[in-house]
Amino acid sequence: MVEVIDHKRQGQVLTPAEINFFVEGVVTHTIPDYQISALLMAIYFQGMTSEEQTTLTMAMMNSGDHLDLSAIPGVKVDKHSTGGVGDKTSLPLAAMVAALGIPVPMISGRGLGHTGGTLDKLEAIPGFQVARSEAAFINQVKTTGVAIIGATGEVAPADKRIYALRDVTDTVDSIPLIASSIMSKKIASGTDALVIDVKTGAGAFMKDESAAKELATALVQIGRQAGLVCKAIISDMNQPLGNKVGNTLEIEETLDLLKGHGPADLLELVLTLGSHMVVMGGKATTLAQGREMLAATLTDGSALAKFKAMIEAQGGNGQVVTDYALMPHAKYQVSFFAPQSGVITSLSADGIGIAALMLGGGRQKADDQLDYGVGIELHKKLGDEVKAGEPLLTIHANQTDLTEVKARLAASITIGSAATVPPLIHQVIE
Amino acid sequence: MVEVIDHKRQGQVLTPAEINFFVEGVVTHTIPDYQISALLMAIYFQGMTSEEQTTLTMAMMNSGDHLDLSAIPGVKVDKHSTGGVGDKTSLPLAAMVAALGIPVPMISGRGLGHTGGTLDKLEAIPGFQVARSEAAFINQVKTTGVAIIGATGEVAPADKRIYALRDVTDTVDSIPLIASSIMSKKIASGTDALVIDVKTGAGAFMKDESAAKELATALVQIGRQAGLVCKAIISDMNQPLGNKVGNTLEIEETLDLLKGHGPADLLELVLTLGSHMVVMGGKATTLAQGREMLAATLTDGSALAKFKAMIEAQGGNGQVVTDYALMPHAKYQVSFFAPQSGVITSLSADGIGIAALMLGGGRQKADDQLDYGVGIELHKKLGDEVKAGEPLLTIHANQTDLTEVKARLAASITIGSAATVPPLIHQVIE
Repeated sequence: MVEVIDHKRQGQVLTPAEINFFVEGVVTHTIPDYQISALLMAIYFQGMTSEEQTTLTMAMMNSGDHLDLSAIPGVKVDKHSTGGVGDKTSLPLAAMVAALGIPVPMISGRGLGHTGGTLDKLEAIPGFQVARSEAAFINQVKTTGVAIIGATGEVAPADKRIYALRDVTDTVDSIPLIASSIMSKKIASGTDALVIDVKTGAGAFMKDESAAKELATALVQIGRQAGLVCKAIISDMNQPLGNKVGNTLEIEETLDLLKGHGPADLLELVLTLGSHMVVMGGKATTLAQGREMLAATLTDGSALAKFKAMIEAQGGNGQVVTDYALMPHAKYQVSFFAPQSGVITSLSADGIGIAALMLGGGRQKADDQLDYGVGIELHKKLGDEVKAGEPLLTIHANQTDLTEVKARLAASITIGSAATVPPLIHQVIE
Repeated sequence: MVEVIDHKRQGQVLTPAEINFFVEGVVTHTIPDYQISALLMAIYFQGMTSEEQTTLTMAMMNSGDHLDLSAIPGVKVDKHSTGGVGDKTSLPLAAMVAALGIPVPMISGRGLGHTGGTLDKLEAIPGFQVARSEAAFINQVKTTGVAIIGATGEVAPADKRIYALRDVTDTVDSIPLIASSIMSKKIASGTDALVIDVKTGAGAFMKDESAAKELATALVQIGRQAGLVCKAIISDMNQPLGNKVGNTLEIEETLDLLKGHGPADLLELVLTLGSHMVVMGGKATTLAQGREMLAATLTDGSALAKFKAMIEAQGGNGQVVTDYALMPHAKYQVSFFAPQSGVITSLSADGIGIAALMLGGGRQKADDQLDYGVGIELHKKLGDEVKAGEPLLTIHANQTDLTEVKARLAASITIGSAATVPPLIHQVIE
């Protein structure tokens, strides 16, 4: 192992044998933590070639359970996001793409910190089950066309140990390590094609567009070398996506979108990601055609029907699609008013996410219980004009003392004279 | 700790508070190995300023016991070497400098691997004790003028833990880490002035003269910032120093030198290092004057008398200075002959050191027992002409099967047509 560390420290390309030896030693615990962390820091400084990243990804993927979805006919497509506030994109997207006859077997995660998790949002729906066996998952995708569940079995245990060490050794923000971590888990899910939404901006892990592009490129290269059809979109995460942040609130917004009256930014992102998925799935030849077909699933009701079918297939109460009151709601709705007139010049995604977390809508520790009904509903977004005393947002809370939450929100919003609104879609990495 | 790692990873200068927090956490075991190794690797890549190195050195020094030698009058001088084969310099040097009335309180170490240790060599003298209490050590320097002992108490425990991790995480060859490790232990010994012999060449840790210079400069800067009078010499370690390698053999060579007939290279190094020590100790104003005074201690017998006094003060049999047979000697003396005629073009210090180790003269593990009598006696050095069949060296062994030792020696010596002999003294770092 000292030799492997030495090669990387000196900037050499590690051989597949060296990378496999490392991952094997991580899983079997024959390599101690301090040698793993030394190698991770050397990788941070010296980087890894695209081939090294793919070898590392595949070795970590092979260290655990992975799904075989070959029993599902057709080109299976999936979507991954690097995470953002108010990012419920997967939910309407899965239903819309599936409504076009493309199988969508989606393995999602839970939220930790100020960004929410797709599985947590789905659990705001009474009865919805995210824990499904591999067989049940495959069967549901075959019959219903779409399923969104948590990981079955133990996915990439090598990544789990490495990730825990990166967190405490300041080696989290290394592109090769981020990319191989994401892709080892995603490739384990057995999809044929993948669209990755890499967030950039103040509220994203990749604050900076050039770093986001570097990560997106690494992810696409690994995906392709692993045999997947793969593309990435770099999208904006300076402000929250859509108008609602919180579990029940985001299911409501998903349903609103599926009924044709979702917020414009969310719709645009769904259509952009979705049109690539429709082309990858072989149902359209151009992105424009894919976009039209997706828009049609909203007007003809097929996407909403697909979402309802998925809810019911996973044990949930399908009546929520018409009766939002069946989901948990907060006791108090409290307005937060504009302290002055002007234009919204910043609306921190991080700050709004943390406010929702403080209300109980997210987890600070992995075993925290969620309060599904709470959250933040935005009435204004970046660049909008506001008048002093006008409500900027509504706090959905189960607590009466909102002093700290309001202080956090006040610090998250700036009102000035002129705003620069970044584009929603920054670039597409082919 | 993650923050400290992060600052160094980004190339920032760590504050004294951060460095002290780190060393404190190392000693109290509140910082886990994997975070220490991540920081060490970040230091490897980002380096440390001279001030950071001094802060780290002092923090590691203060983590353990350190001597207060203020009870000894005069400017106390010491010498440190980064280690070489046949390097018995400390022994004659200590006696000669002390013979001029300069107190020499020397804390030395044992050997590990192919380089010998000063304490091991002294233990070839029957009865010689290297374990002495602080009070006995101070008293001996006051009365006899010189003492060479092992560390009293626990010196720099922070360095001990860090060093063990560096060894297994490929962060040994980082100049700031090497320099602070050496100086934390050396400053703990309580000396006022220090001459450091940094070895360079194929048989040294610093193979390359520019790296040796970098280390020497770092050592001198730390020493001065810590309040010591400090200089470094860069000397050659391509071939062994002197003609004898082995514990008894090196005491013999020390005594020969003190009697005025030591090998030229060893004498030159002793006079070079020593003249700086004599000036530092305030007994001479120029190096030339110091050198003359040191040479006089050989002709007038005062250095030999000082060495004998030290032996007797530490419980050893002083008769060894005239009767070498009182020390352990090997049963067999076996010649090794030149396979061809020509000029010695290489004489690997490493190779000769390893051959001596294979004979039992050194330790491969810390608890190995030493065979004091064994070793290698060189009859030819770099650049010397040899005839085929002429003895190149004598093997002093307690074993009859010398196949492997001879193979090692054969691989360590090259005979060609013309040799480049590097200078013994490369440079002085003021």
